[in-house]
Amino acid sequence: MGAETSPSTAEPGRAQEGAPAPAVPADHPGVSELFAVLAYGEISAFYRLAEDARFSPSLRGRVALASMAAAEMSHFETLHTALEARGVEIYAAMEPYRKALDAYHASTTPSTWMEVLVKAFVGDGIAADFYCEIADMLAPEVASVVREVLAETGHSEFVVHEVREVVERSPLQKDRLMLWGRRLLGEAITQAQYVLAQNEELAELVILASGDLSNIAALFDRMQVEHAKRMSVLGLH
Amino acid sequence: MGAETSPSTAEPGRAQEGAPAPAVPADHPGVSELFAVLAYGEISAFYRLAEDARFSPSLRGRVALASMAAAEMSHFETLHTALEARGVEIYAAMEPYRKALDAYHASTTPSTWMEVLVKAFVGDGIAADFYCEIADMLAPEVASVVREVLAETGHSEFVVHEVREVVERSPLQKDRLMLWGRRLLGEAITQAQYVLAQNEELAELVILASGDLSNIAALFDRMQVEHAKRMSVLGLH
Repeated sequence: MGAETSPSTAEPGRAQEGAPAPAVPADHPGVSELFAVLAYGEISAFYRLAEDARFSPSLRGRVALASMAAAEMSHFETLHTALEARGVEIYAAMEPYRKALDAYHASTTPSTWMEVLVKAFVGDGIAADFYCEIADMLAPEVASVVREVLAETGHSEFVVHEVREVVERSPLQKDRLMLWGRRLLGEAITQAQYVLAQNEELAELVILASGDLSNIAALFDRMQVEHAKRMSVLGLH
Repeated sequence: MGAETSPSTAEPGRAQEGAPAPAVPADHPGVSELFAVLAYGEISAFYRLAEDARFSPSLRGRVALASMAAAEMSHFETLHTALEARGVEIYAAMEPYRKALDAYHASTTPSTWMEVLVKAFVGDGIAADFYCEIADMLAPEVASVVREVLAETGHSEFVVHEVREVVERSPLQKDRLMLWGRRLLGEAITQAQYVLAQNEELAELVILASGDLSNIAALFDRMQVEHAKRMSVLGLH
């Protein structure tokens, strides 16, 4: 992740004459599909965070979740603008992806405040890993949109602090949250496969970005490694 | 509203030497209380909008409400920063105002999508009128924070369009929504009085800003006039 595709003399993040052509050109039809999935992902994350805040034992926790949710909406606006520039109507474009993303959230509805926090931290991270891997192979103007909307939404310090504190003094909670983390990863990968099956152009984009199908398996393996690192940050290892 | 207290030669919005002293100096203890009420108002509006979105018949409506809610959080951050600069811990400061603001929302829980939209538009407006009237008499650095957090959160075009369309073809809906608007104003004024009764310094600030107690009555009258104008924009007259 984060490997520069441009030569070292190039300004970072800028397309350069003579730079190697990206694996996925900016006008690939899968790009609009990618933006649409990301956009619906932001909306569904917004409402999930807002709903999950009911588990918060404190006003501070409710504020932290509301701030994370608000950041998702600013990312949504970025995607809205990017889709408009491509002449794509965002609401129609998002429609095919609602089912899989809603299913992910329905299958990972938290039942405690700790599960809420772990999901907010780890679930976001899984999605970010997947899209950032792909971003490396996209045209720079497309990659910059993807990276912008996957940037840290902040407040992870709050989550890390709250979760570590609980996990360090309760082995039972630790065991439960480790299982929870595994379930989040499993469901995310399942639903990612449904999303890819939903649209041929999107699937082609991911295959092009990965190199070939066997590389997609390697991509999922790397996501597992990143997931384990993130769990470890929360004291879940 | 919006009357300039600084002389016409002054840069608008800037404190000038020789400008008349504001009725409420920046170090009045009621200022922190005012920021705290506003801050809790943003949080409670965020969660109310997120919850009310379940009535939306369309994804577009859900996005509109999520965007309004997100704007509330950016205002919250402004108030958080302003309170920190005054050495005030925001969570403790908000606590006394939770009850009255939660009571306002509990007493005005919408039961239809149209009620949601009218409340988002009219309820926000009532609060903005009240605080903007006060802002005119505050020290400029305080007034600018108040005005910033009461700025239009956008998306009112969406609301106006949706409500007018329904109201123009259904006299029954129009009648119901006119009653709903009246109830929103009544509950807002009731709860505003509870808020003022909650804290002496805040009450003093409002009295200073209004001139005297009889002017508070005049202020509530002007709010009623502004409310009627806003209802009229929605086709509710």
